[in-house]
Amino acid sequence: MCTAISYLSGDHYFGRNLDLEYSYEESVAITPRNYPFFFADGEELRSHYAMIGMAYVADGYPLYYDGINEKGLAMASLAFPHEAVYHEKKKDKRNISPAELIPYILGKCQNVSEAKQLLETLNLWNHPFSAELPLTPLHFLISDKKESLTAEPTEKGLLLYENPVGVLTNSPNFDFQMQYLNLFMGLSADPIENRFSDEIPFKAFSRGMGALGLPGDLSSTSRFVRAVFTKSHMLKGNTEKANVSQFFHILGSVEQQKGCVHLDGKYEYTIYSCCCNTDKGIYYYTTYDDRAIIRADMHDADLDGDELVICSQLQK
Amino acid sequence: MCTAISYLSGDHYFGRNLDLEYSYEESVAITPRNYPFFFADGEELRSHYAMIGMAYVADGYPLYYDGINEKGLAMASLAFPHEAVYHEKKKDKRNISPAELIPYILGKCQNVSEAKQLLETLNLWNHPFSAELPLTPLHFLISDKKESLTAEPTEKGLLLYENPVGVLTNSPNFDFQMQYLNLFMGLSADPIENRFSDEIPFKAFSRGMGALGLPGDLSSTSRFVRAVFTKSHMLKGNTEKANVSQFFHILGSVEQQKGCVHLDGKYEYTIYSCCCNTDKGIYYYTTYDDRAIIRADMHDADLDGDELVICSQLQK
Amino acid sequence: MCTAISYLSGDHYFGRNLDLEYSYEESVAITPRNYPFFFADGEELRSHYAMIGMAYVADGYPLYYDGINEKGLAMASLAFPHEAVYHEKKKDKRNISPAELIPYILGKCQNVSEAKQLLETLNLWNHPFSAELPLTPLHFLISDKKESLTAEPTEKGLLLYENPVGVLTNSPNFDFQMQYLNLFMGLSADPIENRFSDEIPFKAFSRGMGALGLPGDLSSTSRFVRAVFTKSHMLKGNTEKANVSQFFHILGSVEQQKGCVHLDGKYEYTIYSCCCNTDKGIYYYTTYDDRAIIRADMHDADLDGDELVICSQLQK
Amino acid sequence: MCTAISYLSGDHYFGRNLDLEYSYEESVAITPRNYPFFFADGEELRSHYAMIGMAYVADGYPLYYDGINEKGLAMASLAFPHEAVYHEKKKDKRNISPAELIPYILGKCQNVSEAKQLLETLNLWNHPFSAELPLTPLHFLISDKKESLTAEPTEKGLLLYENPVGVLTNSPNFDFQMQYLNLFMGLSADPIENRFSDEIPFKAFSRGMGALGLPGDLSSTSRFVRAVFTKSHMLKGNTEKANVSQFFHILGSVEQQKGCVHLDGKYEYTIYSCCCNTDKGIYYYTTYDDRAIIRADMHDADLDGDELVICSQLQK
Repeated sequence: MCTAISYLSGDHYFGRNLDLEYSYEESVAITPRNYPFFFADGEELRSHYAMIGMAYVADGYPLYYDGINEKGLAMASLAFPHEAVYHEKKKDKRNISPAELIPYILGKCQNVSEAKQLLETLNLWNHPFSAELPLTPLHFLISDKKESLTAEPTEKGLLLYENPVGVLTNSPNFDFQMQYLNLFMGLSADPIENRFSDEIPFKAFSRGMGALGLPGDLSSTSRFVRAVFTKSHMLKGNTEKANVSQFFHILGSVEQQKGCVHLDGKYEYTIYSCCCNTDKGIYYYTTYDDRAIIRADMHDADLDGDELVICSQLQK
Repeated sequence: MCTAISYLSGDHYFGRNLDLEYSYEESVAITPRNYPFFFADGEELRSHYAMIGMAYVADGYPLYYDGINEKGLAMASLAFPHEAVYHEKKKDKRNISPAELIPYILGKCQNVSEAKQLLETLNLWNHPFSAELPLTPLHFLISDKKESLTAEPTEKGLLLYENPVGVLTNSPNFDFQMQYLNLFMGLSADPIENRFSDEIPFKAFSRGMGALGLPGDLSSTSRFVRAVFTKSHMLKGNTEKANVSQFFHILGSVEQQKGCVHLDGKYEYTIYSCCCNTDKGIYYYTTYDDRAIIRADMHDADLDGDELVICSQLQK
Repeated sequence: MCTAISYLSGDHYFGRNLDLEYSYEESVAITPRNYPFFFADGEELRSHYAMIGMAYVADGYPLYYDGINEKGLAMASLAFPHEAVYHEKKKDKRNISPAELIPYILGKCQNVSEAKQLLETLNLWNHPFSAELPLTPLHFLISDKKESLTAEPTEKGLLLYENPVGVLTNSPNFDFQMQYLNLFMGLSADPIENRFSDEIPFKAFSRGMGALGLPGDLSSTSRFVRAVFTKSHMLKGNTEKANVSQFFHILGSVEQQKGCVHLDGKYEYTIYSCCCNTDKGIYYYTTYDDRAIIRADMHDADLDGDELVICSQLQK
Repeated sequence: MCTAISYLSGDHYFGRNLDLEYSYEESVAITPRNYPFFFADGEELRSHYAMIGMAYVADGYPLYYDGINEKGLAMASLAFPHEAVYHEKKKDKRNISPAELIPYILGKCQNVSEAKQLLETLNLWNHPFSAELPLTPLHFLISDKKESLTAEPTEKGLLLYENPVGVLTNSPNFDFQMQYLNLFMGLSADPIENRFSDEIPFKAFSRGMGALGLPGDLSSTSRFVRAVFTKSHMLKGNTEKANVSQFFHILGSVEQQKGCVHLDGKYEYTIYSCCCNTDKGIYYYTTYDDRAIIRADMHDADLDGDELVICSQLQK
C-alpha cells in the first residue's frame, strides 16, 4: 500500500513509497503560481503557492499523490481502505473532492497550522474527479518543518490528529496505529540486555537483537512500526547527499518487493519512492527498477507561469 | 505434548504435565526396595532404591512416566518425536530399553552425578517393552536438588546436557531449545520501559507489558520459553502448601486446554500434572477435570516390601 | 489486571479472573429481592431482581465486582486505567456512581437488551462510594445467553459496543482490542501447514504450531487475544462438571502467576477466578492458593428476603 | 553483520550484503588464471580458474570477502562470532588459513560438488594472514547453479551442510537457522485467511497480512528468515536488468540502515551489496551512499594474465 515520512535533519525532508499493483505513468509536475485551478464546487483559484510533486496528469490537470509547495508545506495521500467516508455536499462547508485536496491545501497554506484551520472548514465531498477516475479511499499526511498532521475522512467528518511520529501508512485509523506503537516501546537499536534472569547464562549471539520483536511483514501496521523505528534511529547526515541517502534507506526498510504481496495474480510493489527537500523545493525520486535518484528542482521552472511543467514521467 | 520442571524453593520440587490425546489410566505406584526388576538385557535388580511415580502398570510391571526415588533423584520421560534414535544391542554396553530407563536410573542412582556416570555406560536399545507397547521416541529430564540433566537418544548415542534452566519440553533437541531461549533474554516481569525513542510519547497502557514477545501457543518451543519464564519469576513461598501451589501454577502456564490442539478429530490436552517433593518423597497430582490436588507419600508404604503399591489410578 | 468471559455450552457461563496485588477479603454475596438499595443520586430500589456475585461488603452494602441475577443477566467490572472518564452530575440523566452500576443494572434488567436501554439513560457520575473507597477507572462486560455488551465510560459519555467475542480485559479501549484481534485471524488449533514455499523441506516439529504467534505475556492485549483463542477452541462438554471445568481452563490460560507481574515490590496475581452458571444461578470460584472449586447456589437462599446473605469470604 | 544469497532466475545470481561498522576500502578485483597464489602451508597455485570478487588487497594479495570463478562457482565468507573454531596445523590434512579459503576453493573447483570434496580434505588452520590482519570467525556459503553448501569451522572440524534455501547470515550455526525457519512455515505472500474462528467477524484490514509474524529486526536469525521469505516469493524477471534489480531488492529487505544497530558509539550498516551473474562472470555492486549499480565484467580483463586487476575501489 503506502508509507509516508516526514524527517528533519538540518533541512526538512518529506516523501513516501507508492505501493500499488500497477502504475498510471505518473509524472513529476510543477504547478506554477498562476496555473488556474477550477474546483468542482465552483471555487476558482487563479493565484496560489507554486508546488511540485508526483501527479497523474488527466486532461492537463495534476492529480497530485504527494507534493510540496514553495513555502515548505508537504502533503501526501495514502490509501485508507474500509475506513474512508466521504460525504454528500454540505451547504455550510467548502466542498472539496478528495482528488482536489492536495492542490487546494498546498495552494493556499504556508504551514501545518494554516492547513489545519482550512481543513476544519472543509467537507470531503463524495464527488469523483471524472467517470474514469472514481473515488478512492484516502487519508493524508501534512507536514512542515515543525510538525505533522494526519487527516482522516470518517463518518463523523474529517478527523485531524497531531502526528508526533511523522509517519503514515494505511488502515486501520491513525488512532489505532499510535496505540499499537506502544506495544513496541521496549525495542532498541542498542545491544540486547538480559532482563529475564540472572541465573540463566544467556548469550547475545548477534548484533541487532535489541530490536527483536520488530515486525517484518508488509501489512500497514507492521510498516508503520518499522518506519517509525528506522526513522527514529537514523544517524543524521550533514550534507544534502547524506540526508537524501538516509531518507531513501528509511523508505527502503518498508519497501514492498515485487512478489511478496500477492493479489489474485497481481503483485503490489513499490512503484516509486520520493524524498522532497521542503526547504529547497527539490523533488528526488527512484523507481522500483531504476535505483538511480532522479532530481527535479521547482526553482528551475518559472514559478510565475500559468502552465503545468512536466519534469519527468514514470515508465510503465 | 509434555513439559517437565525442576524447581527449588526450600525443598526441591519436580513434576510435569503429561499432554496426550488419550489416557492409559495411569496409576501412582510405589516400588519398594525389594520389588525385583528383570531387565530385557538379562540384568536382575533385586534390591534398589524405593521410588514413587506415575506409571502405566503392565502385567504387574510399572512403566514409569516420571518419578522420584527415596534419595531425592527425579526423572521424567517426554515425547521426542522425529529425533529419538534407539540402537541395536551393543556388546560393550549395558542395553536398556527406553521403557526400562526410569526404574533403572532411579533404582541405582542417588543423584544426577551418579545418573550421569551410569548413563554413559548405557546403550538405549531399540527393544519394545512388548508387542502391545511399541517403542516411542523419548528424551529425559533428570534432576536432584543441585542440578538437572537432559538425556537425548540420537544417532550418535545418548547425548547428555547440563540443563541450567531445569525445564524440558519436546522436539527439537535441547541444544536448539537453549539457543532459542536467547531470543527472549530481553523479557521481564518488571514494567516495560521506553527504550525506543525519547521523542515519542509512549504510554505503558497495561501491567505485564515487560514480557511482550513471550510466545503463548502450545508448541514445544513456546512452552519451553514460557515455562522457563514463569518458573524464573515465581515468588517463592515458605510453606509446603505455597510451594506446591506455585509449582502447579507454573505447570498451569503451559497447560494444554482440551480443544486447543487439534489432531485429526482428537484433541491433545493435559491428562495430569504432578509435583513431587523430592526431599520428602511426596507425589502430588491433579487431573484435567479434577482440579483438587491428590497426595501420595512414599513413606506411607513399607519401603522394604517386594510388591508394587498402587496409590491411586487416573480415570479415563 | 482482569479478564472476563462469557461462554455458551448448553447453559450459559460467565466469569472472570480478578488480578490485583492485594485482596480486600471479598465475599460471595447474595442480594435477595427486597434488600433495599439507596443510590447516591437519591434513587431507592426497594424491590429488584435477586443477584449473586463477588463483592466487597462495606458497611453492609455489597460492592459487586461481578455477579449474575436471577434472570440470567451477568455483569463484571474490570480495570480501565488511563481511559475511564466519569463526569459531573448531569441534570437530564440518572446519575449512577461506578461502584453502584452492577447492582443497578442487575437489579433492574432481565437481559442485555434491557441493560443497553437503561445504560443509554445513565451518566456515570464521578462520585466515590466513600472517602475510603475512591473512584477507580472501570469498564464493564454485560452478557446474557444471547449476546454480550461492552460499556466504557469516556470523555464522550458511556460508549456501548456489541461484543461478538464475549471477552473483556483492560485498557486500551474495546475498539482497539477488536481491531487488534484481526492481526491473529490466521492462528489455528489445527496443525501448521506449509504456506511459505513448496521448495523448502519444512518440518512441523511439534503439535500446536498452528497457533504460533499467539502472545503469551500478561498484558491486557495479549490476554484478550489468548482468552478469545482458547475460548473459541474449547471442546464443549455435556455435563455441568465438564462445562465448569472447561471454563476454569479458559481462565487458566490468562491467569496471572504470582511473581510474573512485578510492581515496585508487589506482585499482581489472580486473586480469584469465578464461573457462574447464569441459567441456574450458581456461582463457582477458586482462589490462587486453593484450587478446589467452591460453589454457591443463589436458590439456596430465601430470594424474597431483605438481608444480604454472605456465602463465603476470601482469605487474605 | 552479513547476508549472502544464491538465486536462480534463468541465470544464476549470487551476492551478499557486507554489514560492518567500518570499511577497509575494499576493491572489486579480478585474479586472472596465472596470478600465483602462495599459501601459508607452502602450497603454490600457479595456474587456476580466474575469479572476480570483492577483496581487501593487502600487499598485492586479494583477501576475497566474496567472489565467483569463471566456471560459475560462487563463494562468500560471513562473520560467525562465538562459534567458529580454527585448529592447529594437522599433518594429515591440507592446512588452509581462513583468509585463503575463498581463492583456494574458487581457484581449484568448478562446482559445489568439487568444492565439497576438496573441503573434506582441509583443516582450517588458526593461522592469521598477517600481524595486522588477525583471525576473524567466519563461515561460508558456496553455490553454483545447481546447489548450495554451508561450511562451518567447529570444534569437530569443518562441518558441511547442504543448504536448500541458498541463504546464509551469521551465528548461531546453520543447523539452528534451518530448524528455526520451521517456525515460520505458515507465512505467506497471499492474503491472510481466517483460520481462527468462523464465529468471529474478522477483517483483513491490509494487504500483506499473510506474512504477519515475519521478524523485522536486524539480528542474524531474523535476517535469515526474512531473506529466505523475500527470495522465495520474488517474481522472476526475464531480463538481466530485471533479475539484477530483484536481487538487489532481496538484499534490500535485510539491509542494515545506518543508525539501527548501535555498538558503543559506532553503527553497523551495509557497506556494500553485490550481485554476481555467475553464468556470465559479471560483478554488480552498490554502496550504502551510492545507490547506482556499478558493474564489472571479468571477461573484460585478460584472464590469462598473471597480475591482479583492480576494477574499482570503495570509498571510505
